[in-house]
Formats: sequence, structure tokens, C-alpha cells
Amino acid sequence: MATLYLIRHGLAAPREEYVANDTVRPLTEAGTEKTRAVAQRLKDFGLRFNPILTSPLKRAYQTAVILQQEGLGSLEIFPPLAPDGQLSHWLDWLGQQTLTDKTALALVGHEPDLSQWVEQLVWGDRNSEPGAEPLILKKAGVIGLTLPNQGSPVGTCQLFWLTPPRFLV
Amino acid sequence: MATLYLIRHGLAAPREEYVANDTVRPLTEAGTEKTRAVAQRLKDFGLRFNPILTSPLKRAYQTAVILQQEGLGSLEIFPPLAPDGQLSHWLDWLGQQTLTDKTALALVGHEPDLSQWVEQLVWGDRNSEPGAEPLILKKAGVIGLTLPNQGSPVGTCQLFWLTPPRFLV
Repeated sequence: MATLYLIRHGLAAPREEYVANDTVRPLTEAGTEKTRAVAQRLKDFGLRFNPILTSPLKRAYQTAVILQQEGLGSLEIFPPLAPDGQLSHWLDWLGQQTLTDKTALALVGHEPDLSQWVEQLVWGDRNSEPGAEPLILKKAGVIGLTLPNQGSPVGTCQLFWLTPPRFLV
Repeated sequence: MATLYLIRHGLAAPREEYVANDTVRPLTEAGTEKTRAVAQRLKDFGLRFNPILTSPLKRAYQTAVILQQEGLGSLEIFPPLAPDGQLSHWLDWLGQQTLTDKTALALVGHEPDLSQWVEQLVWGDRNSEPGAEPLILKKAGVIGLTLPNQGSPVGTCQLFWLTPPRFLV
């Protein structure tokens, strides 16, 4: 079974300071440090991603660059990972990949989008009620899913990992 | 918000060797060691449980004793945590507790029961289809939920942690 890791960007500068253009809001120094510690731990666990797809927004891209710098895999910007992006676009991308039991993919993006993608992948249509978020994915937190090598992953993935950074580093 | 940690018993002796009485099937030496490593890590994270409720079956009880020995909290045997136990019995127990934001409870038990309890606590009625397990809780793995201080937790908890031992120790 292939695996899919979803990683939320690290702690970023205050939203109020980037009202004019949220897309360039960067990681803070503390956010960079914690993200690097998370990346190093993922590497220690033997994880490698092929590839790391990332949201084009600066705070996510910087997070993905840190993963790449720590040797976790190559990087590709994937615009549907920006806020309010649709899972269907990633499903189209996935349909063009060849998955094996050794395949490990990574997505770097934003909340609540990543949690909502996970809900669709694990439970199919059975999304939570609006406002009732079933999963808490902290900044620089990680989710791990099994991913079927063939066929639609919607409603067929299993959640084997969900961690905030504080239980990782 | 209070928290609830659900911990699956560690690796136990082969089922075939205890066909006559599965209730006395013990942890293996490797299972004991890994469980102790998990317990030490939980302690390092600053976790303390008040109390640790455990299934009466030997492999779970031994797991809970290890948690107690490592200083994670006091122990109470709770028969509804045995296989096929009903969440409603724990809800009755919970109704008699006073929860605060500092309350952290722990349950030590079995699969698929713990995952099914989690599903009910997080998603309410919205359980998975039979055979389609959405969560993978490995032996000596841990799940963390937020728990409302008042009112029914069914369908109102949030999942903030799910980890196999390999991403913990």
C-alpha cells in the first residue's frame, strides 16, 4: 500500500501584517526552527517523499523547502494546494502516477483544507457538519494515510498517523 | 477542554497458545519493552492521567501497570474495556466525574473496540461501513481526543493525536 503524508505549514507571521497580500506571508523564525526539527524527525523515521507537492503560498513553500533541504524529497509547486483548492485536482494528478507499496507522497498546505481532504479520502462523502471539525492539525503537524495503489482513494484511505509537533520533536 | 487518551495494549503472545483462555494472554518481552518505551515518552511529554482505566484482560492490564510504574497515573480495572465492551458504560462512568481543562483520562484496551469508541466520540452515529476501518491503531499505539468538560462527548470530541509506536519511540 502506498502512503500519503499531509503536512501543514509552520508558524507564520501575523495575518494583520500581510492584509494586502496573504500569499507572501512568511514563516516566523520560530516557525522555521520548529518546521526544521519536524523535518529532521521525519527523516530519522526513514521517510522519503516522491515528490513533495506544495501550495504556492510563501508560508507553505518555505515549509516544503525545509523538507527538501533536510533530504526528504524533491519539490513541486501544486496550485490546487492553495487555500480553497479542490481535492479533485489532486485526484487528477494522482491518476497520472504509478503507485507501488514503496510510494510515499507528501502534500504541504493549509487548514482547514488539508483536514477536509483527509476526511474525503478516509470517509468519502461522510464529511463533518460545518463548524464541527473532527481533526486538529496544528501548524507543522503531520497526517499519514494509507493510499490504495490502484482505484479511487476517496473513502478508502486509512488514517495511521496524526501528530502535532509537540508530540514529535 | 479535558483530554482523553486511548492506548492499545502492547504486543502479546500468539493467540494460538492461549485458545483455552485468551484473558490471560500476556505481553511478550518485546511488547513489554516497547510499551515501557512508549510510557516513558508519554511521561516526557508531561502527560499524567487521572485515572488510567484498563481492560481486565492480562495483556491490557500489564500495559496499564507499565504506565502506572512509569508514573503516568493511578490504575483502575474497568470491565467494559474488555473486548466487545459498550461505550455507554464508560459514558455512565464519565457522567460521575468532574472534568476541568486540566483533566486527562486514559483508557487501555483492545482493537477494534478503541477505534470504534473514538469514531462514536468524534463523529457520533457516523460510523464507518463494516470492514472499512478508518483508523489504524497499532499495538502500544496512542490516540488523543479533546473531551468537552460538560455535556455528552458523543460526536463532539476532536482527534488531535493518533500515533503508532514507531513514530513515538
